[in-house]
Amino acid sequence: MTETTNAFTTAPLRVVAIAGSLRRGSWNRRLLETARELAPAGLHVDIVDLADVPLYDGDRDTDETRPAAVRWLKQCIADADGVLISTPEFNHSVPGVLQNAIDWVSRPAMKSPLAGKPVAIMGASPGALGAARAQQQLKLVLMSTLAQVLPHPGISVGMVAEKFDASGKLVHEPTRQFLTAFLTELETWIRHVGRPAVAERGVRAA
Amino acid sequence: MTETTNAFTTAPLRVVAIAGSLRRGSWNRRLLETARELAPAGLHVDIVDLADVPLYDGDRDTDETRPAAVRWLKQCIADADGVLISTPEFNHSVPGVLQNAIDWVSRPAMKSPLAGKPVAIMGASPGALGAARAQQQLKLVLMSTLAQVLPHPGISVGMVAEKFDASGKLVHEPTRQFLTAFLTELETWIRHVGRPAVAERGVRAA
Repeated sequence: MTETTNAFTTAPLRVVAIAGSLRRGSWNRRLLETARELAPAGLHVDIVDLADVPLYDGDRDTDETRPAAVRWLKQCIADADGVLISTPEFNHSVPGVLQNAIDWVSRPAMKSPLAGKPVAIMGASPGALGAARAQQQLKLVLMSTLAQVLPHPGISVGMVAEKFDASGKLVHEPTRQFLTAFLTELETWIRHVGRPAVAERGVRAA
Repeated sequence: MTETTNAFTTAPLRVVAIAGSLRRGSWNRRLLETARELAPAGLHVDIVDLADVPLYDGDRDTDETRPAAVRWLKQCIADADGVLISTPEFNHSVPGVLQNAIDWVSRPAMKSPLAGKPVAIMGASPGALGAARAQQQLKLVLMSTLAQVLPHPGISVGMVAEKFDASGKLVHEPTRQFLTAFLTELETWIRHVGRPAVAERGVRAA
């Protein structure tokens, strides 16, 4: 498949970035802002917010009743070439806020915008573990949606408060380098497995 | 400890029951309604609803800003002798709606109303698995809150639509018997491990 992969190497890729926390000072949102800054030239990162996505209610999950914020989020993901999620860890698992958004987006099963979509996961926490358990569970959840989860040992940013300065800039150089390499891997992953979505957008012109 | 356990055998126990789905026709809510019907005489089951619990936001999780529905839910659990959760399975895991409620209730860590609280888990699904994966994950989540999760192989009600009649009554006799036994185990579990909560309520009069 090398020859078809090469066909996309010059097209800009759009990545929707989602933080699993609504807190204004969210470390995971700051990590996504850093990803936007460090992304390779071929990767455009847009951060979206989950604050307006209501609690999942199957009675409202119809074409007539689906909330506007849900339709918007699904369209964002459908239009994107890939997804980047940065999650905190709540109770050793995925925050309900993030799980709830996935619950909406994942339906209808097998036909959701996540099916076939390349997704990369990372996480940050004030403690030592860097949301590692949440990320592990999130991988299982996303695989159940048929998302193409980037196979990677993961970016687990522990002791995150020590790695940003007061202005919100990631100043821990090893983490910056690790994140930069991760984003390059994400770009490669999208170009490798994300062909259907890219083709739908008509950018497969080469 | 047998002698202290016996001290509570005549006190009525209050169980807060929570369904992991907001849908009006929720199978898991019907299962809780059946639990309320089948509960032994010593167990009083109250069903609460998560529809008004907003998305978790750390900025609002202070004594001054905590939403009323969250304060109410925490108080319900604090006042109860035990909790019974019936969960559907979304994306092989715990629904965001339920996880989100636990995210609120579980704070502050180590001091939440769930710490030390006896909790039993069951689940239902239209498919064969009866929300088994969601229940497994929910056990891990609850254990992280220091809840006393009932050690039980579990109540996984698969093919649930075939087991209720049109009026919402559980008519599958083996499931009724299994649920009845499960509730008796929950009562025993609460009386065995839930002594501090029971004692706080002042019912340890014997």
